[in-house]
Parts: sequence; structure tokens; C-alpha cells
Amino acid sequence: MKLFVIGVGLIGGSFCKDIKQTMPDTIIYGIDSNEKHLDSALKIGFIDRPSTIEELGLADVVIISIPVTTTVTLLPQVLDRIQDTALVMDVGSTKQEICQSIATHDKRRNFLAIHPIAGTEFSGPEAAVDTLFFGKTNIICEVEKTAFKLQERAMKIFTALGMRIRYMDPVSHDKHIAYVSHLSHISSFMLGKTVIQKEKNEKDIFDMAGSGFASTVRLAKSSPAMWGPIFQQNKENVIESLSEYINNLSHFKSLLQNDDFEGLHKEMEDINHIKLILNGIEA
Amino acid sequence: MKLFVIGVGLIGGSFCKDIKQTMPDTIIYGIDSNEKHLDSALKIGFIDRPSTIEELGLADVVIISIPVTTTVTLLPQVLDRIQDTALVMDVGSTKQEICQSIATHDKRRNFLAIHPIAGTEFSGPEAAVDTLFFGKTNIICEVEKTAFKLQERAMKIFTALGMRIRYMDPVSHDKHIAYVSHLSHISSFMLGKTVIQKEKNEKDIFDMAGSGFASTVRLAKSSPAMWGPIFQQNKENVIESLSEYINNLSHFKSLLQNDDFEGLHKEMEDINHIKLILNGIEA
Repeated sequence: MKLFVIGVGLIGGSFCKDIKQTMPDTIIYGIDSNEKHLDSALKIGFIDRPSTIEELGLADVVIISIPVTTTVTLLPQVLDRIQDTALVMDVGSTKQEICQSIATHDKRRNFLAIHPIAGTEFSGPEAAVDTLFFGKTNIICEVEKTAFKLQERAMKIFTALGMRIRYMDPVSHDKHIAYVSHLSHISSFMLGKTVIQKEKNEKDIFDMAGSGFASTVRLAKSSPAMWGPIFQQNKENVIESLSEYINNLSHFKSLLQNDDFEGLHKEMEDINHIKLILNGIEA
Repeated sequence: MKLFVIGVGLIGGSFCKDIKQTMPDTIIYGIDSNEKHLDSALKIGFIDRPSTIEELGLADVVIISIPVTTTVTLLPQVLDRIQDTALVMDVGSTKQEICQSIATHDKRRNFLAIHPIAGTEFSGPEAAVDTLFFGKTNIICEVEKTAFKLQERAMKIFTALGMRIRYMDPVSHDKHIAYVSHLSHISSFMLGKTVIQKEKNEKDIFDMAGSGFASTVRLAKSSPAMWGPIFQQNKENVIESLSEYINNLSHFKSLLQNDDFEGLHKEMEDINHIKLILNGIEA
């Protein structure tokens, strides 16, 4: 199999690593606008050769793992260049605009929209890790619009990587993911900002931070190049989730201001049952 | 050494475990208003015998690890009952009201106010773990008000447990800890609430949650019995930090509403340097 990976960062690179491991006769071509990343990917060894979009005609499978606003521009061009039997997948954290961008493309049936719910707060080729996707959920959108044989080819890869599959339409995907992923990133970035602002006036505040703070602020290390476009493309849903979050925080604040400590206790107790819900998701 | 631990939960229990390990000739007496917890502590084996405050006259060292509003009531009574040579420490996450509660007590010099920055989102005796405090910061307040010999006794324990020591006045402690600990817990609880509310209408949303969400929402599992009193006692500082957090979230939202994606990118990039700041704090 000839696999082209466009974007050799955390997600693209982790795909390569696992595919190399589980499907050893795959030749992996890497494409990236960042020459240094391409060099690193080659040096680390998860791609076999650097390539360009001019060579996409050779591909059996193409994985696109770049900022989602760039995917919208690039995806139609990728479909233009591939052979009729090739499979193209994007792994972006938004699905609606991406699916729209090729809705009427001649090669729509060559495309499969996926979102593996996996990652870390790090980015770039050095951030790529083995078995990142093992046991993780992979959301597939508009599966019915992809040629059946190419669905099968994709499933072989997902099975080899140990992914759990869920099907969803792009509108629902973008709505729900705003709550369980995009909002977490904003809450974390803004928590980081709030504490950094304080630190400017009060030195050594971070010396008092423990594992709880580190855990809630971890995602504030995430790549702005990747997350800016996600917030942009999922703007309406993100604003909705953010508004509800701000309302909840303001309500908590007013309980505190009104000395309603019973109310506070009740709030926290109700939320505590998230313990049960989170069973099986690792932090 | 005869050690009395009042409150045999996560923190009290973890102290017992490490002290048993590093100072094996210690006899540990457990006091708790919850009989079941006392039974568990005895069964797990980190206390040697259940006790009551009537026996506090036997103690060489007393560690108080209970909700901070209860500490304020109980601490003067504990000091009333101990012998002149005993050391009493509380481990609460707030320090100002606790220090005030015994400021003029005859046995003020028998008391040392500490806050070990260590813990997990779990609670109760079963949550107690070995080496919880190893390498962790322990903030000591008003050290100059504690008898020198008793400071030495405390330091022996802290050294045995591998703690890093920092000194701070209670007002600064409560101000700073609101930002790096108390606010994290609220952000996490309210994130959990926002997603649970959404889940009520949109089923299976949690199936889409990954490690990022789990990490930011982890603290929403924390004990309301412990955290309600902390927010209550540190009300003013918590409200201040919460207000700044809400302002930052609202600003982020307005950047998004105004399509100021360059502004968003710049925000995230500036906050990204938290990577460097967080070096050494484990999530």
C-alpha cells in the first residue's frame, strides 16, 4: 500500500507509526509545508520519503492531518489529483465545513471524513507516539457517501490500529464535540491566562500549584495553529457552549456571593456523578 | 511517638501511611466522626487504634485533616486538651481563618499551620496512598509563632515524607491558592455541569469525550464536603479569581463573535508559554 500523509505532526505521525507497525509493507510518503517537520519525520523514521501533492496520483490512501481551515482549501485539490481507486481521509476536529467543501465533488465517494478522539497537548513530528489510537473512539461522518470498497479499506486500517468506531452526521458531530472537546481547551487556556495575569503581580504563585492545577491547565499547551482554525470553523457551537459555561460559572459565583453554601454543596454533589459517566475515559 | 490523626480520609490517611513507613515506632490513633471510615482505616491498617478527643492528652503530635470550617471550631478544643509539649498541625487548604481561630490561645505556640499541596480527586480512607507528599510543596504559615522545638519535630516528619518547604503568611497563602487551586476546582465542576446539562438533551455525548476532557473535568469528582467549606472560608479571594476567569472567557467569546481570529491566535500563543512555567508540575 502507498500511503500519503499530508501533515506530519502529532496525529499524522502517530497514524504513520501504527500503520508501519501493523501493515509493514506500506510505503509512507510525507507531505508538509514545514520542511523541518518533514526532515524530522524522515529522521524519526515514520515516513519513508518526503513528497509533494504533485505525486498524489501514486496514492492508495491519503490521510490529511492539518489545520481544518487549510483542509477545506486543500481537500478538493487532493481529490482532483488522486486516482479513481484511492481513499482520502481527513482527521480534523470539525466535520461540517470539511464535508461541505467536497459535497458535490466528482470524487466525493473517494473521501471518508473521520475524527479520531485521540491526542495530547503536544504538537509536531516529535509529538507522534505509538498506539495513540488503541481503544480510542473514531467518529466517522457521512459513511454512506463513501464507496463501499474504500470503506472496507479504511476499516482495515482502523481495526489494525485498535479503534472503536462510531457513526454520526457532521452537524451533530460539531455540536457535541464543542462541548466535550473544544470547550475544555478554552476553559484550560483561560485558566492559564487568569493565573499568568495574577503571576505578573504576585511572584512565585506557580510554586504553589499542584497536580490539580496542572491537570486542568494541561490543554493550554495546545497548538494555536491547530486550535484557532477549529474554533473558527465551529464558531456557533463553541460560542453556545462557552455561553452556557460562563452562565454556570456566574451562577456559582452568585451562590457564593449570597452565602448560599447549601446551594453550592448541592451543585457539586449533583456534578459528582460525573465519576460514573467518566468511567473508562483516562485522564 | 504517639500520633493522633483527626480525619482519616485521603490526606490524613496518606500522612499515616508514610509516617508508619518512615517512623515505624509511631503509634497512630485515629479520630473520625464517621464510624465506617474509622473501621476502614483500621482494616487498611494505617491507624493502630480508634480514639476520641478525650484521649488527646496522650498525643505527641496531632494532625487535623477535616473540612476547614470544622477545623476552625475544633482546633481551639484540641489545643485545650493536649499536653504542653504536644504539636498540633492542620493541613487545610485555607489558612487565614484557621490561624485567626487560635491567634490568642494559650497554646498558640503548640500549633503549626501547614498546607501540603498534594492530593487526588478521590476521598475517604480508601483514597489514602503511599508517598503522596514526596517531592510536593508544603506551605507553612506563621512559623515564627510555633515553639522552636515543635518546629523541629514537624520538620523531622516533613523531611521523612520528602516534602519541599515554603513559608508564607496566611493572607498571601489564601490569595494565591485561590488562583492555582480553588479556581481550578470550580472551572472543572462547572465544565462538568455544562456537559451534563447538554447530555440531558443530547444522548451519548460522553462517548465522544477523550483524554483532554477527562483531564480538565477530573477535579469535578472532588468531595463537596471538603470543597464547600474551602470556598466558604476563602470566599473573597475565590470570587475575585472567578470574576477574572469569567472576564477572560467573555473576552475570548467576544473575539470569536467578532471574527478576530488573529486576536484568538495571539491569546493562545501568549498563554502557551505556560509550558515553561509548568515544568516540573505533573498532571
